[in-house]
Amino acid sequence: MERIKPHTLSGFMELLPGEQAMMDKIMDTIRRVYGLYGFTALDTPLIESAGVLLAKGGGETEKQIYRFSKGDSDLALRFDLTVPLAKYVALHYAELTFPFRRYQIGKVYRGERPQRGRFREFYQADIDVIGDGSLDIMNEAEIPSIIYRVFTELGLQRFVIRVNNRKILNGFYDLLGLSDKAGDIMRTVDKLEKIGPEKVGAILRDDLGIAPESAGKILEFMAIRGGNDSVLARLGEYTGRNDLFDKGYGELRTVVEYLKDFGVPEDHFAVDLTIARGLDYYTGTVYETQMTDHPEVGSICSGGRYDDLAGFYTDKALPGVGISIGLTRLFFILSDCGLLDRELPTAPADVLILPMAEDRAFAVETATAFRAAGIRTQIYSENRKFKAKLTYANRLGAPFAAILGDDEIQRRMVSLKDMKTGTQELLTVEDAAETIRARVALSRGIAPIKE
Amino acid sequence: MERIKPHTLSGFMELLPGEQAMMDKIMDTIRRVYGLYGFTALDTPLIESAGVLLAKGGGETEKQIYRFSKGDSDLALRFDLTVPLAKYVALHYAELTFPFRRYQIGKVYRGERPQRGRFREFYQADIDVIGDGSLDIMNEAEIPSIIYRVFTELGLQRFVIRVNNRKILNGFYDLLGLSDKAGDIMRTVDKLEKIGPEKVGAILRDDLGIAPESAGKILEFMAIRGGNDSVLARLGEYTGRNDLFDKGYGELRTVVEYLKDFGVPEDHFAVDLTIARGLDYYTGTVYETQMTDHPEVGSICSGGRYDDLAGFYTDKALPGVGISIGLTRLFFILSDCGLLDRELPTAPADVLILPMAEDRAFAVETATAFRAAGIRTQIYSENRKFKAKLTYANRLGAPFAAILGDDEIQRRMVSLKDMKTGTQELLTVEDAAETIRARVALSRGIAPIKE
Repeated sequence: MERIKPHTLSGFMELLPGEQAMMDKIMDTIRRVYGLYGFTALDTPLIESAGVLLAKGGGETEKQIYRFSKGDSDLALRFDLTVPLAKYVALHYAELTFPFRRYQIGKVYRGERPQRGRFREFYQADIDVIGDGSLDIMNEAEIPSIIYRVFTELGLQRFVIRVNNRKILNGFYDLLGLSDKAGDIMRTVDKLEKIGPEKVGAILRDDLGIAPESAGKILEFMAIRGGNDSVLARLGEYTGRNDLFDKGYGELRTVVEYLKDFGVPEDHFAVDLTIARGLDYYTGTVYETQMTDHPEVGSICSGGRYDDLAGFYTDKALPGVGISIGLTRLFFILSDCGLLDRELPTAPADVLILPMAEDRAFAVETATAFRAAGIRTQIYSENRKFKAKLTYANRLGAPFAAILGDDEIQRRMVSLKDMKTGTQELLTVEDAAETIRARVALSRGIAPIKE
Repeated sequence: MERIKPHTLSGFMELLPGEQAMMDKIMDTIRRVYGLYGFTALDTPLIESAGVLLAKGGGETEKQIYRFSKGDSDLALRFDLTVPLAKYVALHYAELTFPFRRYQIGKVYRGERPQRGRFREFYQADIDVIGDGSLDIMNEAEIPSIIYRVFTELGLQRFVIRVNNRKILNGFYDLLGLSDKAGDIMRTVDKLEKIGPEKVGAILRDDLGIAPESAGKILEFMAIRGGNDSVLARLGEYTGRNDLFDKGYGELRTVVEYLKDFGVPEDHFAVDLTIARGLDYYTGTVYETQMTDHPEVGSICSGGRYDDLAGFYTDKALPGVGISIGLTRLFFILSDCGLLDRELPTAPADVLILPMAEDRAFAVETATAFRAAGIRTQIYSENRKFKAKLTYANRLGAPFAAILGDDEIQRRMVSLKDMKTGTQELLTVEDAAETIRARVALSRGIAPIKE
């Protein structure tokens, strides 16, 4: 037979079972937390009509998209979960209840140049709240509070959700008479952390042609730092001169206030005037999330408030607020930084039943009893030597092995071996189940991330 | 703004939130049951190199495949989960522990002609056990017992897992000197249920050129029906004349015996000599699953034993046994037959908090307490009239609304309204949480299918 060399495409994550179990634990946690906040789960097609997906058109995204034909259909793979959401809400508008709160965890595709830690197929884990005509600002505080809870339950401790408001930025640039250059300025300011204020100042002056005085004011504004209350106080000094600025300032104060109500500790969120988010469609609060000890990885979770989700599909005004975790990349980073907790049990079975006698009926019976008790149970049914069977249990990482020889069968009991300590006890099936369950319950509390 | 009409591609399932919740409940149940049997979860890329995916080549599948280029890569979307599994096992052979038990629930793609109930994007939910060199026959009984448990836990009652063995068929055709025509005969016999024995006999004689006597023997063999013990007894009469037949007969008896041990009731599995499964690579036990009252929908879950999973990628002998549920189609059928239980709660929230006063701090506090108790909680934060808020709670299908007016805030209590009965109680946050939790626990027992 002619053989093909098996391989997985570069830029596509394919995990070994143990790592996959960790990834699944992370996903389950995100799903559970999103669910606790009353978001409904959606699952939309990975393929959409290219015309629908590219309605907004243009930009970097279009170059990266996977686009192809089948028959006479022009198709494309989704490159994010927001455009499919917009389509979904516009299409099913009459059947949905607004505010519509949905989460979606799904794969998206971008044909990026392959490089370390960049993926062409990757999971996004999104939440969005969509209003019909209007949407209360409280949602703009609840969204980062959910993200706080997600990361905390995952075991991440050293992270900061950075919050800003686009109205403040747009109002400020309007104050300076620089509205037409606002986009370019924001892109430049975004580099502050990387290249420092001097170089940013030079770009503002030399490349964007901004007067030195205005450039100085921008840098001065962006230098406002400190505790949230102090930043807000400093910002207050700019109010009273521009309506948009004042509106944004009011929104930011409200969001900060609610964030406290939602129980997000002060050291986990920071008003940060330098963040803007590239996408044009954000109009209010914007978020980025940084791992305190790993600023080099950039934002691990971003989003914001927008006023017009689905203008390309419908004339309904659908404002919303959403945030997205780039899950595949996050997993890669956590693994790379050694932050995945190797104590997290990843074995597919809580107990491995090792039948030692010819008659395996009692093994099957025991397995059935364990499974009825919610214990993940595997019967090792291969005809191997005792040592090979124990080696299998060890390699699998199963916490327990239940050994069933002639003696056990006769007494209708199991020899339960703790694979970690090596101790072995002769127990009734019921008592064995209890022992295993207690251990499983204990290890359920282990978070996937250990900082 | 120029608008694009939003639409979803034909052949792609996109569910409304309530239906999606039902689908998710079905998936969760399958995942949980597969997990109970010690299968590890895998998640492989949806896109593979076309050369890898089509290593086996040819056939109907190749015409249906979604294949495209990106840069100079020849890519294809997976059309099942078995080929990616073969690739995975061959590629990661050294890092896996055998027998390797994996489940995978994922979308696959086939560009079929769109017709009612046929999908181009659909979920498969697969389990496979792969041995290294050999694999014990007990696995061939455990697999259908898992399927029995899956369907039972889903609430399906009237179904039969039909079991046969390819060695019996191949041995029987060998006995008749018809080995070279075995494939054609199996495809013809497969039509027995649809077109009846007379027409099958005519095809065997006229189209396949089989002697009338042999055709008669085939029809006689396929007419062996009845209880499993009686079918096995009748089959016993054919033994002693062909080694392959005898081997298959022994395997079938063993599988039937173990199926009883695994607790599958006799009326839920049937030895059925007419099933063969089209795929060439099955070599032993084969399965199909039929809904008793809906034979017209065909098999909802099929699979079998194979001897060579990954021969196109590796020289390792990797025998295995697996089964696959066509989940998207199954969901469509259940919905179509009215078998989805409309009593299953599908609301995204267990309780909707309705703040009636300006100050929403207590609403946020209550929500935080509910969520800490594991209750899925949504705060309705829009500024609407009381009636509009209740309408929202009704449309959402939330079982409870927690009303927080000035009086409640002052007393630090909530008015908990049961949305079904309309009754309302003033309770402490703790007592309200207890009431909601009790209801949620109760409804957790509702299965998604009601027959």
